[in-house]
Amino acid sequence: MRDVAIVAAGMTQFGELWELSLRDLFVEAALEALRNARVDHLDAIYVGNMSGGQFVGQEHVGPLMADHLGMRGVPTTRVESACASGGVALRSAFFEVASGMSDLVLAAGVEKMNDGADVTNVLATAADQETEVYHGITFPGLYAMIARAHMQAHGTTLEDLAAVSVKNHRHGAMNPKAQFRQEVTMEQVMASSLVADPLRLLHCSPVSDGAAAVLLCPLSRAREFTDRPVKIRASGFATGSMALADRPDPAFLDAVSLASGRAYEMAHLGPAQIDVAEVHDCFAIAEICVLEALCFTERGRGAQAARTGETTLGGRLPVNTSGGLKSKGHPVGATGVAQVIEIFEQLRGEAGDRQVKDAAVGLAQNMGGSGASSVVHIFERV
Amino acid sequence: MRDVAIVAAGMTQFGELWELSLRDLFVEAALEALRNARVDHLDAIYVGNMSGGQFVGQEHVGPLMADHLGMRGVPTTRVESACASGGVALRSAFFEVASGMSDLVLAAGVEKMNDGADVTNVLATAADQETEVYHGITFPGLYAMIARAHMQAHGTTLEDLAAVSVKNHRHGAMNPKAQFRQEVTMEQVMASSLVADPLRLLHCSPVSDGAAAVLLCPLSRAREFTDRPVKIRASGFATGSMALADRPDPAFLDAVSLASGRAYEMAHLGPAQIDVAEVHDCFAIAEICVLEALCFTERGRGAQAARTGETTLGGRLPVNTSGGLKSKGHPVGATGVAQVIEIFEQLRGEAGDRQVKDAAVGLAQNMGGSGASSVVHIFERV
Repeated sequence: MRDVAIVAAGMTQFGELWELSLRDLFVEAALEALRNARVDHLDAIYVGNMSGGQFVGQEHVGPLMADHLGMRGVPTTRVESACASGGVALRSAFFEVASGMSDLVLAAGVEKMNDGADVTNVLATAADQETEVYHGITFPGLYAMIARAHMQAHGTTLEDLAAVSVKNHRHGAMNPKAQFRQEVTMEQVMASSLVADPLRLLHCSPVSDGAAAVLLCPLSRAREFTDRPVKIRASGFATGSMALADRPDPAFLDAVSLASGRAYEMAHLGPAQIDVAEVHDCFAIAEICVLEALCFTERGRGAQAARTGETTLGGRLPVNTSGGLKSKGHPVGATGVAQVIEIFEQLRGEAGDRQVKDAAVGLAQNMGGSGASSVVHIFERV
Repeated sequence: MRDVAIVAAGMTQFGELWELSLRDLFVEAALEALRNARVDHLDAIYVGNMSGGQFVGQEHVGPLMADHLGMRGVPTTRVESACASGGVALRSAFFEVASGMSDLVLAAGVEKMNDGADVTNVLATAADQETEVYHGITFPGLYAMIARAHMQAHGTTLEDLAAVSVKNHRHGAMNPKAQFRQEVTMEQVMASSLVADPLRLLHCSPVSDGAAAVLLCPLSRAREFTDRPVKIRASGFATGSMALADRPDPAFLDAVSLASGRAYEMAHLGPAQIDVAEVHDCFAIAEICVLEALCFTERGRGAQAARTGETTLGGRLPVNTSGGLKSKGHPVGATGVAQVIEIFEQLRGEAGDRQVKDAAVGLAQNMGGSGASSVVHIFERV
């Protein structure tokens, strides 16, 4: 396999973007990436998109995006793994370059969620339709059960959950692309309206529109396009049980553990070597469980990371410096690629007020559903 | 890139399978492929599926399928390119093996269309929602316009269209897995009810449930699993304009032409070297246009191929010996993989009454929407 680098990135504002359609969002992010690398052709495109069909009545997302980007003809593949679609798009693009088949491949993600669709019901189709959704469960409901299991097993408190939101909003307030550029206080989180007990509104990521794109090429060619390429050191991907009820411990994310184990092995390094990470905080409890599954903390101790400040900018291991899904926004198909862009900028020293000092190795963890799929990528400054 | 082989296949009956769900279909086809290769583990799975979300309320198709196959943990990626989803799944699996990342990769396709969804409207989401679907067009309508354009430009007749259906039903009558195992006469096709002028019911592929799966591995390991591996000589993929109205000639399929050109180049051979082909006859006119775009006939002469018998079993180049989408059935996400299985069996000499004598090189062409995406694979007996 050839070494692969990311050489450019593009990303829309995240938010309720009523005036922009699915194709508009993709084209804006993709053009920015192409412009940054000063390229006018591509060998292939991968697009992560969870549900163009249900959100805006549009399947066959690949050729539509290529067409409107002015890239008619270019092989364009849509991949889907619910909210991990973006991460899987990056992985697919990585294989196409690593295999030697293609040199210039765009990995993008896009979702248009604010367009009149019944968003909670559409998102629920990422759970098991026959054994979960049919009986009325929603994603806040699933993660609320995960939170309850974690509280019971490990003594996690409502304040621990709130601390994750406070941290991520603190980071997101410094991110010009974030949907919510404002800090929130512990009191505001604890007083926000109850969504699914114990989860409150400010424990939940929002409904967002947005797109993100990165350009990949062989590492050997990277300096044609930028003087600060970022190498993809590893890609780990795993699935787990689709239904929450089938898991031995609903508070432990097996697929995240397996995916990260594969990534650490491929990169020949461990969690202690990671300088900055973006993780999938669709709900506050998710970040806590993910930190444990990534071995960033001991099992059962993830809840203390935000409260003690170790995952805050300036702490031992800053997590979600972008603001995370909570503050930056969560256009589901785009999220995995947007996480990678934050790491890309951190490793290039371009993160501005959010910069982690001397960041050399970064990790991005993206997750689908209640954790039935997860992708972990590890990146390195070269 | 490493050479890649197909070593085993599995496929459900195609038809209205009311008693089988999306996951049941996938598991049946996948288990058959695994059993045939006598393997009990996989490095990765790719699943082509057009619209689990709209047909049965199920996105996040990858982990669900892995879970129910008993393969929890295995990286499983759903890819979508409308009715070309299966072909794209094979291409993605091919890259993963060719890159050296994985050895044993399952490429599958599945669709559950008969489950109460408004099928015509779901399929329409493979067209351009904003410039086509919103205004009321359906796929029979789009292909009817392609047929009218072909008739006007090249003098194609209603009998030419009917001859494609007659040929494919003749082949499908010999296929135990086909949805319609019966021959039809020219008179029956011409008298069937009008769907979208000039297309009649028997010019149109049916609404089907089904799944298909093939197992890939490096060619160097193929004989561990079978004594008759089939090598993947080439994979070509292209996109074209999403909206029919944007094409210079609506009767010519640019994406098919581009994809096949790429495949011929990669395989270092031309259309004259192909012994047997499966092509995307979602409507009779599609097969005619595809034959031209693949350079199997001159441009404008595709309509004569079925009528003169050259694409019938025993003719110069047998096309759709499986019965094609018309007779075998068209579970959209599964179709691309099912086409590959017909070629796999032909090249192994296992096609029974449908066997093409001395078939050594075969081609499978899969297409999405009105032709905005197409994948072409070329295979060789080794």
